[in-house]
Amino acid sequence: MAEQVIINEVGPRDGLQNQAKILSVAERLELIAALQKAQLEHIELGAFVSPKAVPAMANSDEIVRALAAGQKKYSVLIPNRKGYDLAVEAGAESLAMVAYASEGMAQKNVRMSREQANEATIDIANQAKADNKNIIATIAVAFQCPFDGPSDPSIVAETTQRFLDAGVNLVVIADTIGAADPAQVKTVMQHLVNDNDAAHLACHFHDTRALGVANVFAALEAGVRRFDASIAGLGGCPFAPGATGNVATEDVVMMLEQMGFDTGVDLDALMLASDLAETLTGSAPGGRSKAWLKPYLQKQASVA
Amino acid sequence: MAEQVIINEVGPRDGLQNQAKILSVAERLELIAALQKAQLEHIELGAFVSPKAVPAMANSDEIVRALAAGQKKYSVLIPNRKGYDLAVEAGAESLAMVAYASEGMAQKNVRMSREQANEATIDIANQAKADNKNIIATIAVAFQCPFDGPSDPSIVAETTQRFLDAGVNLVVIADTIGAADPAQVKTVMQHLVNDNDAAHLACHFHDTRALGVANVFAALEAGVRRFDASIAGLGGCPFAPGATGNVATEDVVMMLEQMGFDTGVDLDALMLASDLAETLTGSAPGGRSKAWLKPYLQKQASVA
Repeated sequence: MAEQVIINEVGPRDGLQNQAKILSVAERLELIAALQKAQLEHIELGAFVSPKAVPAMANSDEIVRALAAGQKKYSVLIPNRKGYDLAVEAGAESLAMVAYASEGMAQKNVRMSREQANEATIDIANQAKADNKNIIATIAVAFQCPFDGPSDPSIVAETTQRFLDAGVNLVVIADTIGAADPAQVKTVMQHLVNDNDAAHLACHFHDTRALGVANVFAALEAGVRRFDASIAGLGGCPFAPGATGNVATEDVVMMLEQMGFDTGVDLDALMLASDLAETLTGSAPGGRSKAWLKPYLQKQASVA
Repeated sequence: MAEQVIINEVGPRDGLQNQAKILSVAERLELIAALQKAQLEHIELGAFVSPKAVPAMANSDEIVRALAAGQKKYSVLIPNRKGYDLAVEAGAESLAMVAYASEGMAQKNVRMSREQANEATIDIANQAKADNKNIIATIAVAFQCPFDGPSDPSIVAETTQRFLDAGVNLVVIADTIGAADPAQVKTVMQHLVNDNDAAHLACHFHDTRALGVANVFAALEAGVRRFDASIAGLGGCPFAPGATGNVATEDVVMMLEQMGFDTGVDLDALMLASDLAETLTGSAPGGRSKAWLKPYLQKQASVA
């Protein structure tokens, strides 16, 4: 049996949040339905953040009410306790908090110290345990920070340990600005996989320097078996001008399937979801493998 | 001291040969001059093939006469003994022959059996030894063939061994159609590096499935320290419709330098060469890292 790798589709949240065009709730639901059709089981549905600050995520509660009941595989981003309460009230079962590997990014993004942000995550984790909810903690700028430079791997390791000890279900090691290289990824992730159960670890890469897929491979080599990815490469980072988006779901899935891993994803339906993401946003970079993959799949279908 | 990795720039031959627009000799010399300015020491200058069949490589002798004297780091592609004689007469010091890991590609490309193509390479290698010239042998479709499917790693290993025993200076393991994945690359190349001196091995990747850079990393992990790459991702493959080009020099160099390897390449001058390749051909895909790398270098220059 092929070894499984979990793809957590972040297009509807991390992706859309960083595209110029604001989609309606109906369009966001249409995109999520296409992702579901592609058999993507883990999806980040939306965010409970200020609609003034992040208009693309306004009315995420409607999406959560429609889809999240009883679904621990569907997550939503929350910034704080208020977000937690709103998300849980709407029916969310998995809540994602963001922590930071650098002081600079913690200050810029949430005007907290790194330690304050860690404590906020642990407070939420405690509440979630009491409520029988899942908590995902993303460690942002885990490899490099645009303000503080290269991140300290020992801070990433300590923070990961602390979150897992506090009952966080999953720690996502995130290259928020797409600055990591595969050698660095392999070193950092090998260390984390040695010290922790890989089932509680994931990686999140951006394709800014065209290294997103290589970084996924490096993390796989280190034993990571869960990855964030974004349909059609939707996304970006407000702190990395000129940055392209998240590593594209289609690129990651294609590589994994070709290497013999089982992602459970239906590639034909994934192409449709990718096309839809491009159509709806008008600005998705599109998966880099798509120019090859789409005609290949069409040819296979016509032969079969 | 940083460990060295050799980049062999194949844009002026493998790249231009697969672009729609035919450049003049003056334009080709201009591109090569820009590559030299970027401190790329190893360059594939042109090909001594039929100008009817491959008009983009017509008059390669003029380029060789201008640049190749005494330069073993500059190579030219030759298909046979006639090409060898013409290239040597023009002053070429390094001659590159193509062999095949599959019967299907040997037949389609040169109407020979795989064995006949191997023998032709060994005949040329013997002559080259007598003439004190370098011989490079590329093993095409070393990972997958569009006609015969996945290539047999033991054929690649045997052919490599045979060429090195015959005095071939360098064997290039080529993913001609951009179908390899990094797990396969690591397995195949680890085997070859174990059995042979890595100094006599190189890899050649295409970015068709967006895996070019990941494949470079996988080969590096296996111990390979020499790579073909093409400025601005120039190139393609007539047998892989929709295929994007060779892995881009700027993407490979950026990753290597970031990981602490020494390529000797000047990144600022490399951006100029990449821009020139795009301008001259009108159709170069451009390095995938360039959207980030170019503004980054410009910002660094303005700070300095």
